[in-house]
Amino acid sequence: MLLEKRVPFLYLFKQIKYDLLFVFLMSVCTFSLKKLYGEQMPKIPVSLPAFLGTAISLLLSFKLSQSYDRWWEARKVWGAIVNDSRTMVLQLLNFSASDPKEDGLATKKTMSYRQIAWAYCLGQSLRNLDVISKAKEFISEADILYIEMQKNKPLALLNLQTKNLAELYTKGCINSFQEIQINNTLVELTNSMGKAERINNTVFPVTYRQILHLFIYIFLAIMSLALLEIDSLWEIPLDLVIALPFFMIEKTATYMQDPFMNKPTDTAITSIANTIETNIKQLWQDNDLPDPVDSKDAFYIL
Amino acid sequence: MLLEKRVPFLYLFKQIKYDLLFVFLMSVCTFSLKKLYGEQMPKIPVSLPAFLGTAISLLLSFKLSQSYDRWWEARKVWGAIVNDSRTMVLQLLNFSASDPKEDGLATKKTMSYRQIAWAYCLGQSLRNLDVISKAKEFISEADILYIEMQKNKPLALLNLQTKNLAELYTKGCINSFQEIQINNTLVELTNSMGKAERINNTVFPVTYRQILHLFIYIFLAIMSLALLEIDSLWEIPLDLVIALPFFMIEKTATYMQDPFMNKPTDTAITSIANTIETNIKQLWQDNDLPDPVDSKDAFYIL
Amino acid sequence: MLLEKRVPFLYLFKQIKYDLLFVFLMSVCTFSLKKLYGEQMPKIPVSLPAFLGTAISLLLSFKLSQSYDRWWEARKVWGAIVNDSRTMVLQLLNFSASDPKEDGLATKKTMSYRQIAWAYCLGQSLRNLDVISKAKEFISEADILYIEMQKNKPLALLNLQTKNLAELYTKGCINSFQEIQINNTLVELTNSMGKAERINNTVFPVTYRQILHLFIYIFLAIMSLALLEIDSLWEIPLDLVIALPFFMIEKTATYMQDPFMNKPTDTAITSIANTIETNIKQLWQDNDLPDPVDSKDAFYIL
Amino acid sequence: MLLEKRVPFLYLFKQIKYDLLFVFLMSVCTFSLKKLYGEQMPKIPVSLPAFLGTAISLLLSFKLSQSYDRWWEARKVWGAIVNDSRTMVLQLLNFSASDPKEDGLATKKTMSYRQIAWAYCLGQSLRNLDVISKAKEFISEADILYIEMQKNKPLALLNLQTKNLAELYTKGCINSFQEIQINNTLVELTNSMGKAERINNTVFPVTYRQILHLFIYIFLAIMSLALLEIDSLWEIPLDLVIALPFFMIEKTATYMQDPFMNKPTDTAITSIANTIETNIKQLWQDNDLPDPVDSKDAFYIL
Amino acid sequence: MLLEKRVPFLYLFKQIKYDLLFVFLMSVCTFSLKKLYGEQMPKIPVSLPAFLGTAISLLLSFKLSQSYDRWWEARKVWGAIVNDSRTMVLQLLNFSASDPKEDGLATKKTMSYRQIAWAYCLGQSLRNLDVISKAKEFISEADILYIEMQKNKPLALLNLQTKNLAELYTKGCINSFQEIQINNTLVELTNSMGKAERINNTVFPVTYRQILHLFIYIFLAIMSLALLEIDSLWEIPLDLVIALPFFMIEKTATYMQDPFMNKPTDTAITSIANTIETNIKQLWQDNDLPDPVDSKDAFYIL
Repeated sequence: MLLEKRVPFLYLFKQIKYDLLFVFLMSVCTFSLKKLYGEQMPKIPVSLPAFLGTAISLLLSFKLSQSYDRWWEARKVWGAIVNDSRTMVLQLLNFSASDPKEDGLATKKTMSYRQIAWAYCLGQSLRNLDVISKAKEFISEADILYIEMQKNKPLALLNLQTKNLAELYTKGCINSFQEIQINNTLVELTNSMGKAERINNTVFPVTYRQILHLFIYIFLAIMSLALLEIDSLWEIPLDLVIALPFFMIEKTATYMQDPFMNKPTDTAITSIANTIETNIKQLWQDNDLPDPVDSKDAFYIL
Repeated sequence: MLLEKRVPFLYLFKQIKYDLLFVFLMSVCTFSLKKLYGEQMPKIPVSLPAFLGTAISLLLSFKLSQSYDRWWEARKVWGAIVNDSRTMVLQLLNFSASDPKEDGLATKKTMSYRQIAWAYCLGQSLRNLDVISKAKEFISEADILYIEMQKNKPLALLNLQTKNLAELYTKGCINSFQEIQINNTLVELTNSMGKAERINNTVFPVTYRQILHLFIYIFLAIMSLALLEIDSLWEIPLDLVIALPFFMIEKTATYMQDPFMNKPTDTAITSIANTIETNIKQLWQDNDLPDPVDSKDAFYIL
Repeated sequence: MLLEKRVPFLYLFKQIKYDLLFVFLMSVCTFSLKKLYGEQMPKIPVSLPAFLGTAISLLLSFKLSQSYDRWWEARKVWGAIVNDSRTMVLQLLNFSASDPKEDGLATKKTMSYRQIAWAYCLGQSLRNLDVISKAKEFISEADILYIEMQKNKPLALLNLQTKNLAELYTKGCINSFQEIQINNTLVELTNSMGKAERINNTVFPVTYRQILHLFIYIFLAIMSLALLEIDSLWEIPLDLVIALPFFMIEKTATYMQDPFMNKPTDTAITSIANTIETNIKQLWQDNDLPDPVDSKDAFYIL
Repeated sequence: MLLEKRVPFLYLFKQIKYDLLFVFLMSVCTFSLKKLYGEQMPKIPVSLPAFLGTAISLLLSFKLSQSYDRWWEARKVWGAIVNDSRTMVLQLLNFSASDPKEDGLATKKTMSYRQIAWAYCLGQSLRNLDVISKAKEFISEADILYIEMQKNKPLALLNLQTKNLAELYTKGCINSFQEIQINNTLVELTNSMGKAERINNTVFPVTYRQILHLFIYIFLAIMSLALLEIDSLWEIPLDLVIALPFFMIEKTATYMQDPFMNKPTDTAITSIANTIETNIKQLWQDNDLPDPVDSKDAFYIL
Repeated sequence: MLLEKRVPFLYLFKQIKYDLLFVFLMSVCTFSLKKLYGEQMPKIPVSLPAFLGTAISLLLSFKLSQSYDRWWEARKVWGAIVNDSRTMVLQLLNFSASDPKEDGLATKKTMSYRQIAWAYCLGQSLRNLDVISKAKEFISEADILYIEMQKNKPLALLNLQTKNLAELYTKGCINSFQEIQINNTLVELTNSMGKAERINNTVFPVTYRQILHLFIYIFLAIMSLALLEIDSLWEIPLDLVIALPFFMIEKTATYMQDPFMNKPTDTAITSIANTIETNIKQLWQDNDLPDPVDSKDAFYIL
């Protein structure tokens, strides 16, 4: 999850420490070789690793851009879930047939609270965490029994929503136009669920990532050979300082690719589900509102 | 807010003065070291910081591009709010059942003016400013009481809109097709509201920004070492002049990321709400039009 | 407006002549300083301005790309206006209730021709030109009186369209499905209008542009210092020749950002409205077709 | 049209031969000047043209990317035409009122075959080729007479489709829901047609292209001066070899911008229309299928 | 198909071995020439190939980005297929007319299972593999006979779906609103099918790819000439090590362009169809679930 204040810098530093160690050893190694066999070492002009570095920063920039797009897409999906949850409750609360046989208020409330359950359930399911415990608070025993038997629990909840919606129509609480209109909202929710699953399940092309990693090492190796020209111990910290941002950028890109994976760049799923709970409860005049998620603690202090 | 004429250049300059000061001190420092321990300083070829500078300008360009996209997306969201507000009023004004029991004109006018209130209310709520005072002019006492109890006030107003719309239908002023059609417009408005909130609440990945900042400093440090080659006091202004655009671009990018935050690149929310007010009032033949917002004064003279 | 054949090259050259003059004076100046105080001038390696030039061309490329996107978006909006105008007329011409009380042909024709007026009216309004004179040909006296009182004239025309559409329905010429279907087309037209206004009213971030301009000058100044190395009068034309494309690209980008502003890269609004007129008239078997717009003369020969 | 196997390389080479000839003459010229007035020629460091080359490859990459987007957009439009043609026939074949007065099968078949005609007609019209001859096979005499009088023939065909659709509804073959549903498909087809026309009629910004061309020449001129440093006849082939990919990339970008213009990167319109014909005929159990288009011969052997 | 764990690195290496061999021979060749005719060889400054390398990495980055977009678009299409399949089954399961004459459950189940068949069938058809054998398990004999006669088998299945849907309506199991709502889902499936076919059938511009390949060779040739400066056998491994990532990136880009072609970056079609099967069966309370696809074996061990 992204938070303005807390500094994930050290966290990131930890993730790349082995890469930096390797670069350190490589620099020490080339430096020692230079001292021993100075003459046989190739004299590589600095513009060679410089252009390789430019090439890599290009590839990294594009990768970072694609990772950012994935991350932003994930955020958009959850934004759409907020919007459609609100829309569904607004529609349930206010729609009624012009000559309603009954108001169906109980069913409408059940559906509204099940929507809260669905948001928590989907969030946990994307993170491979316990799916039911939080959702339990908002749904009936029968619902719990039903979804426990099903593999894809958020889909099972959507099935229950559609079933209740159909009942509202057949009982005459809403007219057929309104059934379709609310169904449209459910279709959007099904789509958002599928989109979140897609982003979660689709691995960023492996070869792409591996080549980039290889390329960074090739660059750093040639750089450390070229810096021999400087001919002083300064070479070793220079190598490290140049390597640092490249590894950090690569790591950041990798984290943003998986926006539901409990990483520092995670999408604030729980906090968003919390917002949905608050909005829906307030629309139903229910004042038992949840505390805002203090997600700061949950993540960066690992 | 973006205005053609007024110059936010100095404003921007102010924001980066500490960064520039730091660079100045760093240059003075390396220059003095050179004078004292000239021989021990590493001889860094200029092509080394040059390639780092290229790498940074790449990353900055991508970041600027992503910030611009966010800013433009925010602008699009408010554009959609204008469009849907107009559409809703056009529909309310003209739709009626083929055999209407009553014309519902009072309710329709209430809804139209509440739409003005909603636009002002959403704008203020995004900026964390006083949400109700401006909106009060356009809604009834009962409405004010209702939204004051609710956390998300724009959502509460949308609930009132949907409720009134349902009344228009159950009273026979509009037919069920028209109810759904206007509800579609309300769904779009709910979506736009959620999108604006999403852009407002989602922090741009922190690590991304921090690494970039670190990278700029690494680049400037190596640059100031490399420029020792020039071997004259010219080095110090050169360092500053090269640092200047990098910091400014980074600052501009950072400002564009938060398009609702009272920054010089802000979206002209108030001015857009003003347009909505003018359009809706004119459609209702109401000639009590507001003055155009003179937002120039509000922002750049801080 | 973009035309294949006519060459706007000289036009562009004119726009940047002061920038080039400034660069010329700067080169002459540094060249003279070199001749006078050769030794005290800093020896700047060419790779320094070279990397700045790369950085600028990056930023310019991104800006050009964003300008192009704006320009293409403007073109798409007008493309959508063509499509929806055609769609509306196809629907008006052919839709009728299964048991129509009257055919409403007169109203349908009024609406079709008013659509032509709307296209001309919107185009002129975006360009801040005389809005009514051309539109007058296609609408009634009453319409003209009504829109003259309204600030946003294209919106007023859309209101008249929606009103007429509602009449077609209440008079029984079309059924409620068809009313909503044509209303959907009107909603699209409202959206397109709002999008064109958004592009027209939203200034491209000023700081972004100013920084870029400043950056180009920093680059050219450092370049002209670095080229002293060449040590001959050749330096001055070289400076100019290198500056030329940078200024031209920046200018082109700036022009494409405002696609409705009577600039050489303008969107062909009038010509598109002319196409709409031809299409709609032909669908109504009206052979009084307009001449194709010879927009070539209107723009480039300034 | 893009084909995997056939090599358009030589075709491309032909298109740039004058550019290459010019570069050849320029190299010979600078080389000779060097031999004659060696001392007065400026000594340009290679890093100067190198950075210009980087700048140009940036601009070219962006241009190539925009051209690719246009080309892919054109391909998407034709993909949508395939999808909507299939959808329309699926809907026509299967929709009927719950209590149909007649089945309207003849009209439905007429509409399906007219859809084939529309696809061929639109393709030819985009390419400015004979519009009617191929379409004639699939429509009636009356249709042919009607569209011959109209300027925009594909639009005329869509008018006939909408008219027939309205008849199906007024005759009671389909219900009003189904009329609107099929009309939605027709609206999509109108949009796709308009989009293809937009891409076809909108010239890529001329100044953009001209500046790029100028920039390439400036680069090559400075490059050929800088390569004098090599001081051997090798300079001339080097110049040519470096110029070659730049010109080729620019040419490829230019071709992809106009995806309907009988160029090697053309969209396979005829072949797509052929697919539509096959699909629609098979759905109508008509086994008189067309041969697949052997478009290989039509294009590359010019 | 993309899998986190299995390493396709060697697979990729195999694909570029001839390119690397060629580079090896070229290096050996230039090195030998240097030894024999050292003086006549041109002295190419390293910044020349360095800038060419930057230019190529730019073009490669853009190409990689376009390939990634194609690959991600393909993934989105299959994501949409999952969503729409789920939506269709949710709608079939729960929709019924308010006063249904019969429940149509058999037809609804037939349609649901045919949807599974459709997903497998489309996947195989995109890969040009046996289309029917897997689909057979889920459809009736009559269906099999029908689709065997048709060229485009997934389209034939969609025709059967639309036909059954129409029957549900004419038999009074669902109302006309619900027919249209489910038809909307079928329209989306038709679109997704067409989009997958479009990506599959549209070759990435050939000239674009060929020029890039040529450009890489030009770059490597000039690089191997410039590296003669190093003047030691080190030149040959350096050449190879620099060439390696360029070829690998180009190959990766080429693979991602064809996301349905049994390549290591393939879209996991079979596994997605498997998910659809599981979801649909569970919604129908059918516990005969398929084993998860172990696609790891199918691809990388070639």
